[in-house]
Amino acid sequence: MYSFKNDYSEGCHPAILQALMESNGEQHSGYGFDMYSQQAADLIREKLESPSAAVHFISGGTQANLTVIASILRPYESVIAVETGHILVHETGAIEATGHKIEAVQSTDGKLRSSDIIAVLDKFEEIHKPIPRLVYISHPTEIGTHYRREELIALSQCCRENGLYLFIDGARLASGLCASDITFPDLARYTDVFYIGGTKSGALLGEAIVINNPVLQQNFIYNLKQRGALLAKGRLLGIQFKVLFSNDLFLEIGNHMNQMAAKLANAFQELGYSFLTNSQTNQIFPILPISVIEKLQKKYDFYIWQKMNSRESAIRLVTSWATKEAMINQFIEDLYIASEVEKKEVCEVR
Amino acid sequence: MYSFKNDYSEGCHPAILQALMESNGEQHSGYGFDMYSQQAADLIREKLESPSAAVHFISGGTQANLTVIASILRPYESVIAVETGHILVHETGAIEATGHKIEAVQSTDGKLRSSDIIAVLDKFEEIHKPIPRLVYISHPTEIGTHYRREELIALSQCCRENGLYLFIDGARLASGLCASDITFPDLARYTDVFYIGGTKSGALLGEAIVINNPVLQQNFIYNLKQRGALLAKGRLLGIQFKVLFSNDLFLEIGNHMNQMAAKLANAFQELGYSFLTNSQTNQIFPILPISVIEKLQKKYDFYIWQKMNSRESAIRLVTSWATKEAMINQFIEDLYIASEVEKKEVCEVR
Amino acid sequence: MYSFKNDYSEGCHPAILQALMESNGEQHSGYGFDMYSQQAADLIREKLESPSAAVHFISGGTQANLTVIASILRPYESVIAVETGHILVHETGAIEATGHKIEAVQSTDGKLRSSDIIAVLDKFEEIHKPIPRLVYISHPTEIGTHYRREELIALSQCCRENGLYLFIDGARLASGLCASDITFPDLARYTDVFYIGGTKSGALLGEAIVINNPVLQQNFIYNLKQRGALLAKGRLLGIQFKVLFSNDLFLEIGNHMNQMAAKLANAFQELGYSFLTNSQTNQIFPILPISVIEKLQKKYDFYIWQKMNSRESAIRLVTSWATKEAMINQFIEDLYIASEVEKKEVCEVR
Amino acid sequence: MYSFKNDYSEGCHPAILQALMESNGEQHSGYGFDMYSQQAADLIREKLESPSAAVHFISGGTQANLTVIASILRPYESVIAVETGHILVHETGAIEATGHKIEAVQSTDGKLRSSDIIAVLDKFEEIHKPIPRLVYISHPTEIGTHYRREELIALSQCCRENGLYLFIDGARLASGLCASDITFPDLARYTDVFYIGGTKSGALLGEAIVINNPVLQQNFIYNLKQRGALLAKGRLLGIQFKVLFSNDLFLEIGNHMNQMAAKLANAFQELGYSFLTNSQTNQIFPILPISVIEKLQKKYDFYIWQKMNSRESAIRLVTSWATKEAMINQFIEDLYIASEVEKKEVCEVR
Repeated sequence: MYSFKNDYSEGCHPAILQALMESNGEQHSGYGFDMYSQQAADLIREKLESPSAAVHFISGGTQANLTVIASILRPYESVIAVETGHILVHETGAIEATGHKIEAVQSTDGKLRSSDIIAVLDKFEEIHKPIPRLVYISHPTEIGTHYRREELIALSQCCRENGLYLFIDGARLASGLCASDITFPDLARYTDVFYIGGTKSGALLGEAIVINNPVLQQNFIYNLKQRGALLAKGRLLGIQFKVLFSNDLFLEIGNHMNQMAAKLANAFQELGYSFLTNSQTNQIFPILPISVIEKLQKKYDFYIWQKMNSRESAIRLVTSWATKEAMINQFIEDLYIASEVEKKEVCEVR
Repeated sequence: MYSFKNDYSEGCHPAILQALMESNGEQHSGYGFDMYSQQAADLIREKLESPSAAVHFISGGTQANLTVIASILRPYESVIAVETGHILVHETGAIEATGHKIEAVQSTDGKLRSSDIIAVLDKFEEIHKPIPRLVYISHPTEIGTHYRREELIALSQCCRENGLYLFIDGARLASGLCASDITFPDLARYTDVFYIGGTKSGALLGEAIVINNPVLQQNFIYNLKQRGALLAKGRLLGIQFKVLFSNDLFLEIGNHMNQMAAKLANAFQELGYSFLTNSQTNQIFPILPISVIEKLQKKYDFYIWQKMNSRESAIRLVTSWATKEAMINQFIEDLYIASEVEKKEVCEVR
Repeated sequence: MYSFKNDYSEGCHPAILQALMESNGEQHSGYGFDMYSQQAADLIREKLESPSAAVHFISGGTQANLTVIASILRPYESVIAVETGHILVHETGAIEATGHKIEAVQSTDGKLRSSDIIAVLDKFEEIHKPIPRLVYISHPTEIGTHYRREELIALSQCCRENGLYLFIDGARLASGLCASDITFPDLARYTDVFYIGGTKSGALLGEAIVINNPVLQQNFIYNLKQRGALLAKGRLLGIQFKVLFSNDLFLEIGNHMNQMAAKLANAFQELGYSFLTNSQTNQIFPILPISVIEKLQKKYDFYIWQKMNSRESAIRLVTSWATKEAMINQFIEDLYIASEVEKKEVCEVR
Repeated sequence: MYSFKNDYSEGCHPAILQALMESNGEQHSGYGFDMYSQQAADLIREKLESPSAAVHFISGGTQANLTVIASILRPYESVIAVETGHILVHETGAIEATGHKIEAVQSTDGKLRSSDIIAVLDKFEEIHKPIPRLVYISHPTEIGTHYRREELIALSQCCRENGLYLFIDGARLASGLCASDITFPDLARYTDVFYIGGTKSGALLGEAIVINNPVLQQNFIYNLKQRGALLAKGRLLGIQFKVLFSNDLFLEIGNHMNQMAAKLANAFQELGYSFLTNSQTNQIFPILPISVIEKLQKKYDFYIWQKMNSRESAIRLVTSWATKEAMINQFIEDLYIASEVEKKEVCEVR
């Protein structure tokens, strides 16, 4: 059984394991004050072309989201997000648990627009409602779509004009950057804070929080310590991000994932299937006849994402740094067979 | 410069790296539902002789403490701890940040006694004070001492008689178990919950929370997820604890640390130095003349723990899974030389 | 300028002032342990026909909601409410500030149905979403509608079958009870907890929280104290509720408010205006031509609730214990005049 | 049985009841935007000689403390207080429940000194401890002592030099101001925020929070609303503070309480009894033979504060706005008799 369930099924990129082995016997300072964490932060700042960015490494995405959001907001302030946002649907109320309301906005493509922000601000009532202060978006989104550079710039402007901070959840940033025209320096320029996902891009674990806005940098590390998010052996995160940001490995991984997903997507398209969302990233959501899904399930693991009607469902296929092209080819072959059979069956029924 | 600053300066035990390499390409379920995490939990339950214990793996000690404590207490309940307890002095207010008061108890040796618990209960006032509900102890303590089996039993009885839960912070449990007559089954029998420290016993990161009391087991994992403590690649923790609990590696590591520390302690004793605390674990706190400290500092890294008087300070030396006997010998040699010189200087001054 | 803005514009019912004066010189115990609070609680238990109900008095509705909800839920549990619920739109994120997510449900009439509850439960995902544990409804609702007895029973059954608690926000309970066939004993029987609004029913301030479910009664008072909701001079609340629950004053007030509102509603109906919601309680939401609204605004204060189209808006009119029939007559007279003028103007335009 | 248990046993000053009656029929805006609240705030600003102070009225002291403290501190910041401080011993962990650690300082007289603040700052460790940011003192203290003007100035300077805010809990400020040389303008000048206690100085309920530091004023009202501390009928608080701050009634009440307490204290002194603390405010703590206490308990209610030895205990006597001189005289008479008897008994025993 081969799994396309997610991008954290495998271990880590071999170059990371290699670096862990080579450094294993060395003694280093704890809590992120090791040489590797410093070097990794420097490499990231270089890519961002932003020498003043603050970089902190932590172990996971929910932790990144809750720590960042809770560190920014005053108790009576809220965060705006689309209703499919990870913080709304997949973090067990982690943001509310820090005391903050999320203003949910409807969206069909997982993306937030300036008009959505304005609509939330328009409904604000003094004293009786929390003050919106932060905008949360994911790039790419939880349903595979991504922002274009001009969309990011528009959101950024809207935020600045309205006294809002902009935060990007980059759990799958490698895939997002490779799919869009947004660059690392754009992230430094147009957001107040974002995080670079390691867990879903070939690391054993780890996300790099980047704080661009100097106001938000102050004492941030205290939030990490207080929430149990500061690893004693911080070197474990530093080493991994050093590897990911040397020789452009991070984007290489993003490209690989996207190419593997695109190959899958092409096959579905050629067979005439449509998609739940228009994705160019490492998550695709083809809509398939249930009989085809059942056939594929015998050899492959994946999520059935959404029932479309009595005959069809959308499934989610995710590629990772470790996805092998041979497996993609095998899957496509099996898809063609399943699809062929299905068409025959449908004809016969008719 | 060789460091005796702590037990998290090095990477991980080679057997762990080996297991990570061997399993790297495998695909596993996320969030701790992988095969390795299940196997590690089984191995731990076996050692505890407690088939019904719930075992959860998370990334660090502060995270373990805050997640466990906050999951147990109702909003108006408090936890009792000695004033040197890790949750009181080294976690940036993490417990209070979850909404709970810590009732601090004075202690000269880092250990809590039943009489301390009773004293806190005696000061309780209905409605106007939080209700004490949990007792937190560390084994070994933050200053190197440890509990004896009969002390643990006495605390456990006191807790049960007074409707209190008992929680052991086992950040350095490997060292503690090897220094005392307390066994794994004792921990299952006499505590409601405890955690097994991996980070300070040869893992890259990771602690295993063990919940013995069935009342406290229910839905615990939701707390982990909500606090960002549930790793997507949970296998990383599972694999490490599987290695640590195969072939008694965990206790082997504890023994090694303790022996290295004992060898250091003997040298100090032979030279006539006294100690701040009576430690048989991997942290020792010799009291040295400042001139000796300064000489040692040229070659070794360690914390100056406490100024005793104008002439002497207590230092902390910590050994780890990676401490080499050769380095211990070298240190002792250098200590003898520094000590010799100091005695001469003192004589000359006189 | 006469105000129909809300039901807390005036002071308190004269009988309450009288009782405050008569008792003023007496010495009583603090924090709700005074004779009057005990008597008031007894009177309430009598009305409920529920000798085991726990009754606590506090100063306001948001305080009641947040204290009750936070006392019931474990950190990873959520509460279900309609999107117009007071806790969602008018409490500055007070519930989220206690750490809990509100699952918002769409509703056109401000009422929650069992099917809404089931729909939320169906979307639940283990571990990754908070566990719904509590259902919050308001009787009457924030938009003037109310539940019928059979609807309450259906909700209650649905909750019990699904392991959910049921909580009624009774900020305007006097009005709600007088409009519906739900009785005090029904509230004891079919809810786990509810509160009786005093502030909006003739008290200076104060709400009575009634906890029917014995599981939820334990130590509840600690939550009050911890959140600053336990008044030192608890007698102030006790005296008021004693007055409100002697001689059925509470329901008398509810009836008065409803009758005054009904008289207004009839006038609008006779003039052919429609309403935003079908209300038989003390809040009505007639939809009026903007020119009529503007004329009324010269003599009366009220909220413009919602813009319907370019010509019409819904306004909110609220009656209180203090609303005088003469003022209602005057308003109706002014309404007829404004309406007459408007119709003429419209004719002329045509 | 006459009670000297506390200063909230009786209702309110008659002038307040009178004002409530006179204004009862008037319609006013809610949530503190009524005319009376504005007038009361103006009167307070006048007394403070501080036109820019922000004034907010809320219902109780614990609510004032928790709202103010939580509004000032960032999540990782702590507050310094003496171990007898109200927030440490009598608020059911309300401050910790907002997420903040209180750094407790030992003090024999209930007062905090600059050296205590410096001692806390000296123990601070970067990252691993919360950052102290606020100093909390009570004037008068919980054990009857009070600050002198020069002590307040010294604390204020110490705070400003060390980047700390200074907050005074003025639950019994009327008594404190009348006992010390500190004036209202001093409070505006030397604190960042303080509150004026109404509940314990003749109001039915209510405290006035005064925020002097403009940085701390912004959006403060959102905290009030979110914590359920903003009364719908805010007029109830406004009217009371308007009465208390017209014609110096507030200080008149303070003087009365202090004089009644002083008269009691003189009697104890004349009889040769000593005191637990040196109080010139409305709480005194005489140390009496247990036999005397038992005799007094037959006619009077008061707290036994602390057991001194097998023969003696300190009791607490509190006077209020309502304490009648006749009762003081009666008590003194009874004290003389009880004392006489006791001395005889002691002689006979010898």
